[in-house]
Amino acid sequence: MCLNFRKCQSVLITGASRGLGLQMVKVLSNSSERPTTIIATARNPITAQELQKIAKSYKGVHVVQLDVVNESSIESAFQEVSSILGGNGLNCLINNAAVSTETDLKTVTPDKMMKCFETNSVAPLFVTKAFLPLLQAASAQGTDMGIHRAVVVNISSELGSIEANWGDGAAFKSYSYRISKSALNMTTRCLAADLEPQGILCMALHPGWVRTDMGGPDADLSPEESISSLLSVIADLNKSYHGGFFDYSGNKLPW
Amino acid sequence: MCLNFRKCQSVLITGASRGLGLQMVKVLSNSSERPTTIIATARNPITAQELQKIAKSYKGVHVVQLDVVNESSIESAFQEVSSILGGNGLNCLINNAAVSTETDLKTVTPDKMMKCFETNSVAPLFVTKAFLPLLQAASAQGTDMGIHRAVVVNISSELGSIEANWGDGAAFKSYSYRISKSALNMTTRCLAADLEPQGILCMALHPGWVRTDMGGPDADLSPEESISSLLSVIADLNKSYHGGFFDYSGNKLPW
Repeated sequence: MCLNFRKCQSVLITGASRGLGLQMVKVLSNSSERPTTIIATARNPITAQELQKIAKSYKGVHVVQLDVVNESSIESAFQEVSSILGGNGLNCLINNAAVSTETDLKTVTPDKMMKCFETNSVAPLFVTKAFLPLLQAASAQGTDMGIHRAVVVNISSELGSIEANWGDGAAFKSYSYRISKSALNMTTRCLAADLEPQGILCMALHPGWVRTDMGGPDADLSPEESISSLLSVIADLNKSYHGGFFDYSGNKLPW
Repeated sequence: MCLNFRKCQSVLITGASRGLGLQMVKVLSNSSERPTTIIATARNPITAQELQKIAKSYKGVHVVQLDVVNESSIESAFQEVSSILGGNGLNCLINNAAVSTETDLKTVTPDKMMKCFETNSVAPLFVTKAFLPLLQAASAQGTDMGIHRAVVVNISSELGSIEANWGDGAAFKSYSYRISKSALNMTTRCLAADLEPQGILCMALHPGWVRTDMGGPDADLSPEESISSLLSVIADLNKSYHGGFFDYSGNKLPW
């Protein structure tokens, strides 16, 4: 598969032990035009056997321990990633780690809301904030916007579209998940406004409804279909995507 | 002041010890066409001296203890409000209690994000959920949508508009507050979809930038200007506002 990722020297993907994160690592590692360095983070690298297998099979694939809701884990991961990358910085940060809970009006609890928000909305902000020096180092070496320079991709969801949560679009009930993804979209927009002067592109990306542990067996897309399409969008990111919310085919979504 | 609130028998306003909540209680209590029962909640009623003074001066104004982030406090308040209202139910719930923290990219912390989310986004959902039996009792007595029947008004903010957070609109930096209000907008939309079959109107309302403790001395509007306009919008709510995000003049805002 040719993904035009060669212009991106380094990518970091959080939550890469399974689901879409693992699929991204698989496809990127195996691509003919792949980034030189692929960093895959997992909360528990030891149990992430499939990921470890990929890291052993392909050159330049590194597994790093990262619990995205733990500040000291973020700091340790930053140190480890810094020494892997040397002075070249990080071209592409993909905040993919997320949790999901199906919570309708009856079953939603404050605790479920808080946990989902912490992982899905707060963590991407603090992971990005921690890795900013590496994104800035990469950004300093390029012009324009895109993965040849520095980008932050937040894996969001159409379920986080407030506009789309109406009529038939409101059939799927999940207060905690929907609210956390709307919050992530605002996080993305805040970051995009703040990182623009540094030339760092920041956007929110909906991977589609995918047959993963999270999406369930009835979902529209296979992980292969979703990720090849999603990575094509990331490969071709330019300024017109900055601060926006798009799906895996590159279509703009309403907030 | 004539507000056309007579068709609304009962209103409950959270966070009424100061700022906009206090101003709403003041204006409603003193209105010629006021609701029979005005319930003003405060986390610490004993120290809410101005509110207590209003409650002593006007008939039908009740001060109820409510800490919106405390489940047992919500349950106690529900019991107390139920006995105040008898079988008539509650026509209008105004989720106004909120906290604000100015947090730019440098000063934002996970803890500030979580606290703001808990009060501004999670609490309105669980206050509404707890008071649903009273809203349903009121709704059962009416047709169409509006304050003659049952409405939930979530006091949001234009700062929670993801769309508007760009260019000049992004000048005010507050990650925690902006993100919590976007999350509240999604909470509102989820609730609106779920409460529609019961005839309960649910919407998000931006009070303008107001000279309160929260808004600061440079804000556009006096509390009097904001609240008289905001209460006029609430008085005239109808189905066209259901599930939407509007400002104090009744203008639709982008998500």
